[in-house]
Amino acid sequence: MLKEFHETFFALNCPYDEASTVLFGAPFDSTTSFRPGTRFASRVMRAESFGLETYSPYLDLDLADCPVFDSGDLELCFGNTALALADIEARTETILRDGKLPLMIGGEHLVTLGAVRAAVKQHPSLHVIHFDAHTDLREDYLGETLSHATVMRRVWECTGDGRLHQFGIRSGARAEFLWAQAHTNLHKFNFDGLAEAVAQIGQAPVYFSIDLDVLDPSVFPGTGTPEAGGVTFLELLEAIQLVSKRNIVGCDLNELAPIYDQSGSSTATALKVLRELLLSVTKTSGRM
Amino acid sequence: MLKEFHETFFALNCPYDEASTVLFGAPFDSTTSFRPGTRFASRVMRAESFGLETYSPYLDLDLADCPVFDSGDLELCFGNTALALADIEARTETILRDGKLPLMIGGEHLVTLGAVRAAVKQHPSLHVIHFDAHTDLREDYLGETLSHATVMRRVWECTGDGRLHQFGIRSGARAEFLWAQAHTNLHKFNFDGLAEAVAQIGQAPVYFSIDLDVLDPSVFPGTGTPEAGGVTFLELLEAIQLVSKRNIVGCDLNELAPIYDQSGSSTATALKVLRELLLSVTKTSGRM
Amino acid sequence: MLKEFHETFFALNCPYDEASTVLFGAPFDSTTSFRPGTRFASRVMRAESFGLETYSPYLDLDLADCPVFDSGDLELCFGNTALALADIEARTETILRDGKLPLMIGGEHLVTLGAVRAAVKQHPSLHVIHFDAHTDLREDYLGETLSHATVMRRVWECTGDGRLHQFGIRSGARAEFLWAQAHTNLHKFNFDGLAEAVAQIGQAPVYFSIDLDVLDPSVFPGTGTPEAGGVTFLELLEAIQLVSKRNIVGCDLNELAPIYDQSGSSTATALKVLRELLLSVTKTSGRM
Amino acid sequence: MLKEFHETFFALNCPYDEASTVLFGAPFDSTTSFRPGTRFASRVMRAESFGLETYSPYLDLDLADCPVFDSGDLELCFGNTALALADIEARTETILRDGKLPLMIGGEHLVTLGAVRAAVKQHPSLHVIHFDAHTDLREDYLGETLSHATVMRRVWECTGDGRLHQFGIRSGARAEFLWAQAHTNLHKFNFDGLAEAVAQIGQAPVYFSIDLDVLDPSVFPGTGTPEAGGVTFLELLEAIQLVSKRNIVGCDLNELAPIYDQSGSSTATALKVLRELLLSVTKTSGRM
Amino acid sequence: MLKEFHETFFALNCPYDEASTVLFGAPFDSTTSFRPGTRFASRVMRAESFGLETYSPYLDLDLADCPVFDSGDLELCFGNTALALADIEARTETILRDGKLPLMIGGEHLVTLGAVRAAVKQHPSLHVIHFDAHTDLREDYLGETLSHATVMRRVWECTGDGRLHQFGIRSGARAEFLWAQAHTNLHKFNFDGLAEAVAQIGQAPVYFSIDLDVLDPSVFPGTGTPEAGGVTFLELLEAIQLVSKRNIVGCDLNELAPIYDQSGSSTATALKVLRELLLSVTKTSGRM
Amino acid sequence: MLKEFHETFFALNCPYDEASTVLFGAPFDSTTSFRPGTRFASRVMRAESFGLETYSPYLDLDLADCPVFDSGDLELCFGNTALALADIEARTETILRDGKLPLMIGGEHLVTLGAVRAAVKQHPSLHVIHFDAHTDLREDYLGETLSHATVMRRVWECTGDGRLHQFGIRSGARAEFLWAQAHTNLHKFNFDGLAEAVAQIGQAPVYFSIDLDVLDPSVFPGTGTPEAGGVTFLELLEAIQLVSKRNIVGCDLNELAPIYDQSGSSTATALKVLRELLLSVTKTSGRM
Repeated sequence: MLKEFHETFFALNCPYDEASTVLFGAPFDSTTSFRPGTRFASRVMRAESFGLETYSPYLDLDLADCPVFDSGDLELCFGNTALALADIEARTETILRDGKLPLMIGGEHLVTLGAVRAAVKQHPSLHVIHFDAHTDLREDYLGETLSHATVMRRVWECTGDGRLHQFGIRSGARAEFLWAQAHTNLHKFNFDGLAEAVAQIGQAPVYFSIDLDVLDPSVFPGTGTPEAGGVTFLELLEAIQLVSKRNIVGCDLNELAPIYDQSGSSTATALKVLRELLLSVTKTSGRM
Repeated sequence: MLKEFHETFFALNCPYDEASTVLFGAPFDSTTSFRPGTRFASRVMRAESFGLETYSPYLDLDLADCPVFDSGDLELCFGNTALALADIEARTETILRDGKLPLMIGGEHLVTLGAVRAAVKQHPSLHVIHFDAHTDLREDYLGETLSHATVMRRVWECTGDGRLHQFGIRSGARAEFLWAQAHTNLHKFNFDGLAEAVAQIGQAPVYFSIDLDVLDPSVFPGTGTPEAGGVTFLELLEAIQLVSKRNIVGCDLNELAPIYDQSGSSTATALKVLRELLLSVTKTSGRM
Repeated sequence: MLKEFHETFFALNCPYDEASTVLFGAPFDSTTSFRPGTRFASRVMRAESFGLETYSPYLDLDLADCPVFDSGDLELCFGNTALALADIEARTETILRDGKLPLMIGGEHLVTLGAVRAAVKQHPSLHVIHFDAHTDLREDYLGETLSHATVMRRVWECTGDGRLHQFGIRSGARAEFLWAQAHTNLHKFNFDGLAEAVAQIGQAPVYFSIDLDVLDPSVFPGTGTPEAGGVTFLELLEAIQLVSKRNIVGCDLNELAPIYDQSGSSTATALKVLRELLLSVTKTSGRM
Repeated sequence: MLKEFHETFFALNCPYDEASTVLFGAPFDSTTSFRPGTRFASRVMRAESFGLETYSPYLDLDLADCPVFDSGDLELCFGNTALALADIEARTETILRDGKLPLMIGGEHLVTLGAVRAAVKQHPSLHVIHFDAHTDLREDYLGETLSHATVMRRVWECTGDGRLHQFGIRSGARAEFLWAQAHTNLHKFNFDGLAEAVAQIGQAPVYFSIDLDVLDPSVFPGTGTPEAGGVTFLELLEAIQLVSKRNIVGCDLNELAPIYDQSGSSTATALKVLRELLLSVTKTSGRM
Repeated sequence: MLKEFHETFFALNCPYDEASTVLFGAPFDSTTSFRPGTRFASRVMRAESFGLETYSPYLDLDLADCPVFDSGDLELCFGNTALALADIEARTETILRDGKLPLMIGGEHLVTLGAVRAAVKQHPSLHVIHFDAHTDLREDYLGETLSHATVMRRVWECTGDGRLHQFGIRSGARAEFLWAQAHTNLHKFNFDGLAEAVAQIGQAPVYFSIDLDVLDPSVFPGTGTPEAGGVTFLELLEAIQLVSKRNIVGCDLNELAPIYDQSGSSTATALKVLRELLLSVTKTSGRM
Repeated sequence: MLKEFHETFFALNCPYDEASTVLFGAPFDSTTSFRPGTRFASRVMRAESFGLETYSPYLDLDLADCPVFDSGDLELCFGNTALALADIEARTETILRDGKLPLMIGGEHLVTLGAVRAAVKQHPSLHVIHFDAHTDLREDYLGETLSHATVMRRVWECTGDGRLHQFGIRSGARAEFLWAQAHTNLHKFNFDGLAEAVAQIGQAPVYFSIDLDVLDPSVFPGTGTPEAGGVTFLELLEAIQLVSKRNIVGCDLNELAPIYDQSGSSTATALKVLRELLLSVTKTSGRM
């Protein structure tokens, strides 16, 4: 008898209760003000993931040894931001409650807010490490407070001063940069200062949010708002290594918009970042 | 001294107070559930409009003789549907109050609701003529009542039974087609029955909404949800001629998503529909 | 506990043993001599299928009432044609043996050979109805007998003279057209003669193979070898209706190459053809 | 010893002195005012021509029996219109002087002027049959008299009143349509009147110029200025048949801009038009 | 009453007489011999500029504080090079005569010649600093002396030996490199030697011409002739900083061809270079 | 009389018997398991090669001085791998037997096997230097031993242990990396160790195979399986210089798939690599 058809990230097939990391997609881009399209990221990444090796020659580790469960994509309501964020928060809470690590694939960066709200409930002393080209610190955008352009301001409302650590930032309004001086730990352009930040955080719980546009558009043009002057792929891998040694309780990868890179190269790069991230943050009980 | 730079549709330069028709763009697609991109329609159409002749060999009329004012694009808030609709309603009201005909360029089809709300306030006995591939008659979409998939249900709430006339419809849920039998004047696949509907409406005020996906995807692939089996360009021109003989008090053209047709042909076709529509509905005081 | 993630055509979820039709993808295009890319058809169609309504206003039928099982895509070996055909034959045999109707999504047209080989074993008196722009009747192609350009010659070897009925043919070598006069029932350009052919076949078992390039490139540019002068979408629907009244024992839909139509319109059209085909050939036990 | 590599249209290999028709490309688009790109037409058509059968099921004729020589592409100077036209005129003159039929692949439509200048020198009583979406009858364009937008006005200067027969025209300035009433034989929208025109021309020498944008953009989006409402592929074939029965002394095919149709379908259609044209106008000494 | 619609670069709205820098577009690419398309650069850049922040975290300066006027695009005659250059020269002269700094957006690189001709009239001792991948030093191109491939030779005719400083050059004919040794200050591959050149120029008037293809194609593929081995975005910013400390009397940014980079990333990068250039060269009367 | 039309790489026109290097294309990608398209590489490269200067400012050498013959593209049978490899082997043997250097343009990487088989027959002590992102060392792929994924394993069967030198490798199965430790000289990520390898090889005959995906996808996205983290263009040039000082008896350039980079930048980069390679490996008898 023919079995049902499953397509999962990297063809992973670990059952939910044996998994220590749980993937899910959050296809939502309703508040994107420039060029939408990140809603297609998780679907396209999953489909293309069969083209990537599961073994990392960087880490000498293999996803085949990694207990990861792909719980598929949420069905989110375009045009109703509050509802979409509530769905994301609920999924994240379920995963956290089951003692597993949630890894969300966005979507626009606003999806991070849903996940952070769930994480901070369980971990009130949460730090957030944020890689991005953009500040995302506006109080509101055309009057709306829930927006891709305000998400880190809303995250800061969850964590308070000094617990939001931003790296790679190279675009924003002057007022945002000024506001950041008082409230966040903002590092311009690259990962300078990351080692110090990570050391200072120690064993506090960390939510790790990667906006892939932190990468230079040369290697990652497939995003709504490409910003020249970003970090290289190898710099990002090294930074992920640094962060993943902390006590990660949740993470996400955002802002791939596959349609803007018809070479498929941005998707392939996002997948490789995902592989390295999964290999770095997933707890195993006996990796070589 | 160098003058300021103006780019308008077809390089039209009639002043506002001499105009009888007023164009505006409504770049909004936050509730689009499948493929977004209609937010770019008005901008791209305006830019490409210089490649189209202002003279119509079909009508033997010229836009140069047409008192049309281009009032530019609204700046709408992505992610806040109610706010966006209110802005559209306000712009439409202003134009109606000044005794002019509003012609809106969407955007997703939901933008029609803002304009109809303004029109029905001034014209309580309003009829709506609706060309579309889709029913757009759902009560809600994933719980949200303001959506591209529900817009004609909301319009019906403004007009009541028997005043919403739908043509070209070839896609929808079974329940929508059933509901339409009791409440709207729905015609499947093409413009059969249009002459009768138009005769019956007589001189009642009419809002005229054209979802360009009523066209066959062969001539109009540049839209979020292309539906094979649509009408031809010449059938659409003829239908516009029929409708425009009525008492039109407002109209719109929706659902061009330029990014999905990189040949530019869909944009060129949308512009030609716009030209013919402008020539047909604009009041002049002495055209040849 | 989170459940496993399933993506199926049109989100169909009928279990295998209750299904009367079984879908599968045959992603193979190794012998394509001009432009490859049909290997991506089933994957892209499945992903895009959620954008299409399950209800057909043409037939007033709904896929929700149709017992169809999606058994996913075969993993075929690029570069080893014989092996790939054997895998297709095996899958088809399993479905036929379980008393169900196989519906295969290609791939290049050669995949039909695998399915016909299975069908003719069970139904030695098999007829084949073939919609296509191309004859596909060469004896060999650069010395190779298993090729997209020879597939109908190989099919003829299974059925013998007078049982292969070809429609819409508008491209081929002169020698193929001459050969067809003696051996197949070839109709040029359109569906003229289809009603007669169908009447003549009567209740004999029929394998129904649709090469989507029978459609005009205006509505279906997304294929390796577009041939101007094809049939319209509505003509194809009508022809499918005619054929599906026969005793269909297997069918397929081939030659969508999504990459060549970046508007997505060809994929949407292929899906609508698939919906109408499924609604027409699937046996139900009590449809309205 | 390895031979030199030749790529010709349809792999034609008839020597020059045995040929009765001579092909050449005129890759020039310097005066295109909207979207350039026709310079790539001949190169792309030649490369793609190996994907098209040489046999026509419409005419039951084969290019393999047709004495056609491909003389390659001219190297024309972008930015120097007069020089480019002179090169085209010279090539056409050579071919005419050798008693052969020149068939030029443009390029923008202005290239026709070079060929007509050569033809009218040899055939002072020349008629021109012109298929096009556009009038091309301006006196000048931004002050320049040699332009794609003025080419038929310049051609008229070669032939005089009543010898320029225009078909399919659906775009132009009002003044051009008015001017045409006095000077050319202009037919709007389609081929109505072609049979009469052809009968009237009798055995006078005819230059036959096909701007491929006479086709509807649904089947031919790959052109700089697509104009909805054009003729179908089969209507064009039929019209070519009508014209080719006259005394054709030169012909051209223009305005394919491959980059605007990434499906390749426009190029394939242009090639099929070219095949049918070659089969219709080439003199053979004993075709079946 | 509704106001007229203005779309300007970065939504700048400084009046002409208060501006110290004046932008204009020069959409011209008639002499481009390989791949045209730079004619669309200024239009697309203006449209996309609303997606870029006006604040520079590199310079800690904001365009909102910069007195810049956007005077729109010239309407240039394709196919008549001399006329187009005269129009550019006239516009540049007007701006210079009014004591303002002209900043031109090309177009192909030939447009620089029009601007330099105006500048050298007012500043006979003019130096030209030229960033480019190409030498652009041919005497003629297929017999034509006004060409993108000859522009710097023509510029040299305006300035004389030793006043043309070229950087980043990595493509050209051997003869051009040899000629440059005697007449220009040519630096291969990168900006080595720029500091020395700038020091040597001192306070002499400088025209600053940036061909954006000096950037590596990885970050700037959207150009007609991409040349691997170019400079990085940050190297270019640094070099602009160096040059802008001189007495700049005119500048331009050339050779973006948006159509060749459908990710939009090249346009975004060009805009960021423009922002940094504007912030660096615009005179303000009291910047922080 | 008009001459036949020739299009060759860089318009090279050296006759075969005067040539020391012979180019040919091997358009084959039947076994590509992810994204096909390399079959178009040689055709597109040849067509685009006229946009590239023949002079190298890196080497101060010019292709005009290089005795290179372009023998065109093989016509290979898609779907019959063994036959295709035999054709490649035969062409390579002919060139080698005539004492010339074969330079093959793929195609997928499997084409290398045909050329190596010919080379090792003439040079039994052959070394192979292999630049690639991928190991290509599988024993079989889905049961097939002739595949792009197994090609270097098959090459190793020709050369034996210690004669296959791999550089830039950053993707493969763990088992392949382990196998390589015992059998090949594999260097991960970049060209570290190349100087040593080259020194060790000394004057032994070398076949040099460049899979262009060794380049970073930022500069070379146009390939089937882009792998982030690759080498830069300048690093590749330098490595080519190192290798070409050895006794090169054959070489190839593979895996450009032009369709995946619509900017044309990958093709331009491939051509520049080809130019530098030709200038480096071609024997001349008296270059300046």
